[in-house]
Amino acid sequence: MLARDLVEEYPSVTSDTDALEAAQLLGHHRLPGLLVTTPAGRPVAVLPASQVVRFVVPKYIQDDPSLARVLGEKAADSIVNQLSPLTVGDMLPERLPELPILHGDDTVLELAALMARLRCPLVAIVDDDHVLGVVTASRLLSLALHAS
Amino acid sequence: MLARDLVEEYPSVTSDTDALEAAQLLGHHRLPGLLVTTPAGRPVAVLPASQVVRFVVPKYIQDDPSLARVLGEKAADSIVNQLSPLTVGDMLPERLPELPILHGDDTVLELAALMARLRCPLVAIVDDDHVLGVVTASRLLSLALHAS
Repeated sequence: MLARDLVEEYPSVTSDTDALEAAQLLGHHRLPGLLVTTPAGRPVAVLPASQVVRFVVPKYIQDDPSLARVLGEKAADSIVNQLSPLTVGDMLPERLPELPILHGDDTVLELAALMARLRCPLVAIVDDDHVLGVVTASRLLSLALHAS
Repeated sequence: MLARDLVEEYPSVTSDTDALEAAQLLGHHRLPGLLVTTPAGRPVAVLPASQVVRFVVPKYIQDDPSLARVLGEKAADSIVNQLSPLTVGDMLPERLPELPILHGDDTVLELAALMARLRCPLVAIVDDDHVLGVVTASRLLSLALHAS
């Protein structure tokens, strides 16, 4: 079995995609992260859902977490207010870690080894700079369901 | 909105649960991680899917990743063979990080702040040591779908 046999479709975002749209995609598809590509489709980063959550928390609450308790009523509004001015590019870490990327004809064990090494919930699978899709850790583990 | 309004059911595992069963639960429910509890239901750890993936990779491939290419044919069998002797307890890190846990009446912003601080894809929500469920990062972000 090869990496391409496991790929799932993924919603496409670029650095210019609105942060709010990215949050909605993560929420709607229940993804652990999003693959960020150039407009031409070349992968440039993985944006974990937990990284997006960081930008949901207003700065004054990061500075004084006790305020979260008294100001927590309108959570959805807060998410919108915090994310609206931002793009995906604004939420990416300044130093990007090694990009989790493999080729369609790489094996599932290579996939597991890379995911384990980078502790990454998502690997992009490409052929000739064209993204075939992504494989999540839970998708890889779903192979265990079909084992003899 | 409070943390209890966002909780999702979660499959229950303990340190004694078979590693293979844990992998199957992660794969079946497409979860970013599993909540591990004592037999009495008190939460003790979160086991991320990417941590389980580490144990899927045979030791000789971790030592020489080039072997993954030639030995990658029977991925499902490899997962079963690697995980079968193990339990959830065997896959937990020796030093457990701070447990991501909140109470049902904590606010969504407190939830976001904790998830952001621990960079954790999953928070357990408890009332009186009874686990109400878990909230994932993507579930939290799904609030953005319903914003005005």
